Amino acid sequence: MSLTPAQLSGTATHRFGYLGPAGTFCQMALDAWEPAQSAEQVPCDSVVAALESLRHGDIDAAMVPIENSVEGGVSATLDALSVGSDLVITGEVLVPVTFVLAVRPGTRLDDVRAVGTHPHGWAQVRTWMNTNLPSAAYLTTLSTAAAAADLDPAAGDIAAYQAAVCAPVAAKIHSLDVLAEDIGDNGRAVTRFALVAPPGRTPPPTGADKTTLVLYQRDDHPGGLMEMLEQFAVRGVNMTRLESRPTGAAMGSYCFSIDMEGHIADARVAETLMGLKRVCAQVRYLGSYARADGRLTRTPVGTSDAEFDAARRWLEELRR
Amino acid sequence: MSLTPAQLSGTATHRFGYLGPAGTFCQMALDAWEPAQSAEQVPCDSVVAALESLRHGDIDAAMVPIENSVEGGVSATLDALSVGSDLVITGEVLVPVTFVLAVRPGTRLDDVRAVGTHPHGWAQVRTWMNTNLPSAAYLTTLSTAAAAADLDPAAGDIAAYQAAVCAPVAAKIHSLDVLAEDIGDNGRAVTRFALVAPPGRTPPPTGADKTTLVLYQRDDHPGGLMEMLEQFAVRGVNMTRLESRPTGAAMGSYCFSIDMEGHIADARVAETLMGLKRVCAQVRYLGSYARADGRLTRTPVGTSDAEFDAARRWLEELRR
Amino acid sequence: MSLTPAQLSGTATHRFGYLGPAGTFCQMALDAWEPAQSAEQVPCDSVVAALESLRHGDIDAAMVPIENSVEGGVSATLDALSVGSDLVITGEVLVPVTFVLAVRPGTRLDDVRAVGTHPHGWAQVRTWMNTNLPSAAYLTTLSTAAAAADLDPAAGDIAAYQAAVCAPVAAKIHSLDVLAEDIGDNGRAVTRFALVAPPGRTPPPTGADKTTLVLYQRDDHPGGLMEMLEQFAVRGVNMTRLESRPTGAAMGSYCFSIDMEGHIADARVAETLMGLKRVCAQVRYLGSYARADGRLTRTPVGTSDAEFDAARRWLEELRR
Amino acid sequence: MSLTPAQLSGTATHRFGYLGPAGTFCQMALDAWEPAQSAEQVPCDSVVAALESLRHGDIDAAMVPIENSVEGGVSATLDALSVGSDLVITGEVLVPVTFVLAVRPGTRLDDVRAVGTHPHGWAQVRTWMNTNLPSAAYLTTLSTAAAAADLDPAAGDIAAYQAAVCAPVAAKIHSLDVLAEDIGDNGRAVTRFALVAPPGRTPPPTGADKTTLVLYQRDDHPGGLMEMLEQFAVRGVNMTRLESRPTGAAMGSYCFSIDMEGHIADARVAETLMGLKRVCAQVRYLGSYARADGRLTRTPVGTSDAEFDAARRWLEELRR
Repeated sequence: MSLTPAQLSGTATHRFGYLGPAGTFCQMALDAWEPAQSAEQVPCDSVVAALESLRHGDIDAAMVPIENSVEGGVSATLDALSVGSDLVITGEVLVPVTFVLAVRPGTRLDDVRAVGTHPHGWAQVRTWMNTNLPSAAYLTTLSTAAAAADLDPAAGDIAAYQAAVCAPVAAKIHSLDVLAEDIGDNGRAVTRFALVAPPGRTPPPTGADKTTLVLYQRDDHPGGLMEMLEQFAVRGVNMTRLESRPTGAAMGSYCFSIDMEGHIADARVAETLMGLKRVCAQVRYLGSYARADGRLTRTPVGTSDAEFDAARRWLEELRR
Repeated sequence: MSLTPAQLSGTATHRFGYLGPAGTFCQMALDAWEPAQSAEQVPCDSVVAALESLRHGDIDAAMVPIENSVEGGVSATLDALSVGSDLVITGEVLVPVTFVLAVRPGTRLDDVRAVGTHPHGWAQVRTWMNTNLPSAAYLTTLSTAAAAADLDPAAGDIAAYQAAVCAPVAAKIHSLDVLAEDIGDNGRAVTRFALVAPPGRTPPPTGADKTTLVLYQRDDHPGGLMEMLEQFAVRGVNMTRLESRPTGAAMGSYCFSIDMEGHIADARVAETLMGLKRVCAQVRYLGSYARADGRLTRTPVGTSDAEFDAARRWLEELRR
Repeated sequence: MSLTPAQLSGTATHRFGYLGPAGTFCQMALDAWEPAQSAEQVPCDSVVAALESLRHGDIDAAMVPIENSVEGGVSATLDALSVGSDLVITGEVLVPVTFVLAVRPGTRLDDVRAVGTHPHGWAQVRTWMNTNLPSAAYLTTLSTAAAAADLDPAAGDIAAYQAAVCAPVAAKIHSLDVLAEDIGDNGRAVTRFALVAPPGRTPPPTGADKTTLVLYQRDDHPGGLMEMLEQFAVRGVNMTRLESRPTGAAMGSYCFSIDMEGHIADARVAETLMGLKRVCAQVRYLGSYARADGRLTRTPVGTSDAEFDAARRWLEELRR
Repeated sequence: MSLTPAQLSGTATHRFGYLGPAGTFCQMALDAWEPAQSAEQVPCDSVVAALESLRHGDIDAAMVPIENSVEGGVSATLDALSVGSDLVITGEVLVPVTFVLAVRPGTRLDDVRAVGTHPHGWAQVRTWMNTNLPSAAYLTTLSTAAAAADLDPAAGDIAAYQAAVCAPVAAKIHSLDVLAEDIGDNGRAVTRFALVAPPGRTPPPTGADKTTLVLYQRDDHPGGLMEMLEQFAVRGVNMTRLESRPTGAAMGSYCFSIDMEGHIADARVAETLMGLKRVCAQVRYLGSYARADGRLTRTPVGTSDAEFDAARRWLEELRR
């Protein structure tokens, strides 16, 4: 299955999955994705569940977190994209991670004896909590939005805590009051979300693109990583993210999850991909797409499409 | 503060921290660490808490998880070692990750309607659960050992589940029966634990050593990673782990957590460290220590201590 | 003008130039070149003169010395091929360099008071001369063959010396006696000759081929040579000769004369050439041709034509 | 034997060899070398002869040509420095190569039927000759100065030519008239001369220095040259000359003659030398000396002596 142009444009009959429940940062990312604005939003329990729905055709695309500026790559997503039938990233969205302390109307700070949130959320508000609620207990929830949902007055008295750490949108959805805004330790934290779709229609190059890959080495010999990286360097292609991920085969067996500048339609990216294909045990192509920050790709001297074309014509002339 | 030889040998009056409660894989690692066998074992709530205790002198060393063959680097540990006053790794232990399904004596598989464990444990037994307990609910606990502890008959009826997924040792400690052994999806899963201590006394080289570093690039220019890796390659030093970790400064700003073969006392490792020190914005040295697997370091032609010494004598002769 | 198949096969009406006069090692190379065996042999005064005749169409191909195992690259040839209209190497011949001491019939060693030869010949027989004719004077001639020609009994008494150092064939042509054979200091000396022709018809690949290039750097920045060499390394292409030659523009301004393994029809050679074309100021292609020694080209894993083809098909599939 | 400071300063009792006879460009270089100005000048027949005199202690130093901006490296010098007991370069001089057409007083251009000069000189005046004396014969002499010497009116009528192509100084020495000045094809041609002395006293670093080496690869494996060049690159050391020279062992067996920026007293040069010593079969050090052009050495970030010192102190602190 591949998306038709109508599907890519997100007409109302189409379905976009995201990490639910309503009110997550992931839903904020989906809200910000223009082509999805009139589409149906489908909450999913986990990244794995979202990608399975996508592979089964139950949804048309899925918004999933891929990287956090504080926590690093989202392992669950990187791993889920690396196995199973091919899926590709067709876009990315950056969402500032802003936490609020949300309570039922009427609750005051003094009333808060326990706080519910997801462990990742808790990790990012430790400083504020130590200062303002040093004696509050911490209760784990499955997501920051779930922490807010269980506090929703409409849900009844199911929560064992009096306050939730969640996104501003979750407080709003669940009719909660915000006792404190922007309580994260790192005020500039950002999460990067990827819109994942079945393969088939790569968005056209914009001049400010990224391409995502997973590379498996042929064998684990000294210098093997350098050999792979030289495929990029010799063609002037810059990497913007490099993460090793265990393959699970053995301790010390890694694959590499990589974002590179440029689009598969660019000559230098295409030759780099072919070079990697030849020297790696496996290359998994995870899509070319417009960068969320719109930064134009740098093209070192000798690596433009025009220079690749000129070199090819010169070679053909010599070979004639 | 630095460990005295008496302290390093782990006499009874010394205190070794680990990730508690009793029965964790981390305690298994500490049990396996010979110098700690007659020392006091001190459970800690988290990696951050263990390292803080160490920095305050409340404990003499701490055993913490650093890498999992399935999940990858343990971000919490890598990040906690990268900030704050210097600590160094003085040893490593590999622990096979084997899960059991533990119940109170008398409970049968048919009685299990809910299972408690840590999310990481749950992630690694999904296949067994789907096959054998497809309708069981999953309840989150703070550790796999805590899941067993709450089932302990001596704890009273505090658990909302009938079975725990935990290490064999946790079942034993808490007087539980084992309904099924080795239920992990990946039978070869291994976790690598590091014994962390204050700086001062590096263990002597054994010929089968590793050195751990964190590298910060001077600036994020294309080819910057290659420049760092060439410092290793040109001196024949092999890396066994490379992980990028966000610095938190901005999306796309990384440092690199690296294990390399060899010991700081080796000439080629020393020259590599000095080379990195010169070209990086910051190099954090996290210790040289014997490898748990005892694999001898490969020394390419031209990189032995004897060859470094001969080259130095030759240079001194020329300079005279 | 380009050679027709008939011309390449060297039918009698065609003309092959060589460095004369008759009896030079260069003529020995031409004698050994099978396609030229029934062609007319045209002696030329110099490499420059031979290549000028070729460019004017006065001869169909020229055999010229390109490299000596003792003296190195033949600068005059390397430089003459680098400027002017394009010419290409279409074959190579290796000729052992064996010197004899030749005299008119009747002359004995005791009669030799002076020896004539070319400076290159003299340089290679110094040890024999010091031992056997320590007091003989040395007289310069324009070639080793010219030294023999002037001794030819048919030439009259024009030589001021009694013995010539020359190739065995020169002694034979000029009816001289050989007083001592194989008098060179280096018994394994070999000269490599190249058959040069107008561009147009590259010989087909044989699996044991070489390709010759001249590379001009874009500018003389540190690391510039490494950048060019990486174009070879990343595609597994081995160089068999690398010589820097001054461009004449300024002290320290070089171009690089290079022989590489493989044929322009090989995918990895073709991509290397295109890569060089993009990063160099100028690339001068001087031909692909069968190696004289028949040694098969090594093809590292990932660089065969089949692997290049597979990578291209994979890319095209992804781009669809 | 090694030069004393008094010897290096060239007091009158010392002897400096050069390529004779009087009037060569090599003597011009020696005239320009300040420390030799009151020393005795000793003409030598050849580079080999000069270096042999030096090794025997007959002279204290020798000025020899090492590189020409048009012709490239001077093979005879490069080869003679590579074998035999160690000698080192202690200085360099650049001499513009300017040719004149010199005749006996009274001779006019119309009288010139033959021209005498060294083949290198002839090669560099071809354009002028073709234009102005197209029908003149060419007669070989052992040096350009010898061509002038044989025309010297005091020498009698020994020359078979009427004009010499030589350096202006040769015309002056031999009382010749100059019919045409600056007749070289390349008006900017420069020859670089090296002052060679026994090892022992390296001139102090000036900040604008060069170091000369000959490198022999351990074996001729693909990528071997890259491995050697990386020793320079990783320490930010720039090469200003790279020439391959045959070792004479077999066709395709090369050593590399290299000039690099910097002085053996510089930390980055010293570490590069030691690195090469470890990875090469042989490294021949041919001296560190002040550059004739006074261009200051570029020192990339991270490669200054201060940064090397800081890295060493940091390492020693870690090792304590």
